[in-house]
Amino acid sequence: MSNLRIVLVRTRNPLNIGAAARAMSNFGALDLRLVAPYEKAFREAVSAVGAALLLAKAQEFDSVEEAVRDCSLVVGTTAIGNRELQHELVWLEEAGEKIRKKLVGGRVAILFGSEKTGLSNRDLSHCHWLMRIPTRAEHRSMNLAQSVAIVAYELSRGLTNAMPGVKNTLSSAAADMATLNRINEALREALNLSGYIHRRSAASAEEKLRRMLLRFNLRAADAEVLLGMLRKILWRLKSE
Amino acid sequence: MSNLRIVLVRTRNPLNIGAAARAMSNFGALDLRLVAPYEKAFREAVSAVGAALLLAKAQEFDSVEEAVRDCSLVVGTTAIGNRELQHELVWLEEAGEKIRKKLVGGRVAILFGSEKTGLSNRDLSHCHWLMRIPTRAEHRSMNLAQSVAIVAYELSRGLTNAMPGVKNTLSSAAADMATLNRINEALREALNLSGYIHRRSAASAEEKLRRMLLRFNLRAADAEVLLGMLRKILWRLKSE
Repeated sequence: MSNLRIVLVRTRNPLNIGAAARAMSNFGALDLRLVAPYEKAFREAVSAVGAALLLAKAQEFDSVEEAVRDCSLVVGTTAIGNRELQHELVWLEEAGEKIRKKLVGGRVAILFGSEKTGLSNRDLSHCHWLMRIPTRAEHRSMNLAQSVAIVAYELSRGLTNAMPGVKNTLSSAAADMATLNRINEALREALNLSGYIHRRSAASAEEKLRRMLLRFNLRAADAEVLLGMLRKILWRLKSE
Repeated sequence: MSNLRIVLVRTRNPLNIGAAARAMSNFGALDLRLVAPYEKAFREAVSAVGAALLLAKAQEFDSVEEAVRDCSLVVGTTAIGNRELQHELVWLEEAGEKIRKKLVGGRVAILFGSEKTGLSNRDLSHCHWLMRIPTRAEHRSMNLAQSVAIVAYELSRGLTNAMPGVKNTLSSAAADMATLNRINEALREALNLSGYIHRRSAASAEEKLRRMLLRFNLRAADAEVLLGMLRKILWRLKSE
């Protein structure tokens, strides 16, 4: 669980932050990250019973991008069914298995959106895939801290029984988000220079490219190769 | 889940009752029973978002005995280890299996004690056995409503598989090899033109690129997009 980061995005109610911290602590998830919390005084939340230290050590970020920079897997949570989702959507139980495997060799961020609106499309563009807690269709919307509690519970399942020997060799380690962002940047610049991206569609291009790059599930080594290629191509495009 | 009764015993904070009601509703546990709640005005708890009806229909009892009278299995929850317990103690995951089997043919009550003191010895004397949520030894005590949420989630496991499937709008069909070869070709040409590939390493470049492209597990739609990008970049490189 030490490789797990719980990222609360634009949380409105500081009591929810405290309650999430308590639940995390119950299950050994000790790294809390906050992106643009609505209420700055969240560190005093009385709901963080027994988790004051975890809450005190929580890091604040201005954007999702910064908050997940050191992670090699980013998973978003959503209560939405299949409404126009552009991501793979997995039920929590199956997601738990995938995430536990990943946690053996790399850092994983789980994103929770704000109480009212959830994660935005821009937030989602940083996610490799999405997961959903199997709530009833008639009453999907959960309390934020309860969602965190259930996810932490599910992820901690059987961790102590985890089989040793499933090691990630360096070559199959996933690319981190910082490298993916550099690839995104270089690719966008090349596509701009070559006229693939028109000025009026430039804004959405970044998100679209990021989603596509995430679907590639790039390994760290391949990401470096790809970045090298793009930079060489870019250099050539600029040298005209 | 219609045979499940959640019984909150001597709950102090009415907000916890409301939050428990919401979590129950999320997972289809609709029968809430309250034994001697500390605050009589619990039915107005604002935390019962989307579960007002469930809360309105909750039954009040003076004793555990009355609250579980119609049930054929009574399970207590505890954060205590096995210190002086006179009951069988089961981890939640195993308990979930046992309870789900029982729910097929009979009513099951799950007891949650008060926030401060948990269930009393007298309460426990009504229980067939006890279960425990696997929290860390260093931080066992959970928020009451979060405990209810996790228990409801665990008990609904498998039942929710009957829910309509989650569909992705994006086709996940894999790219065919012909498209991969076209991508390989375009990429190699771009890398040649930009000087990334030197003449003496050209022979091995094709294989290396193909292996890398295969590792991307490209979807058909993404492969077409990628090919379009490369051709545009290539056209630009050639037009100097």
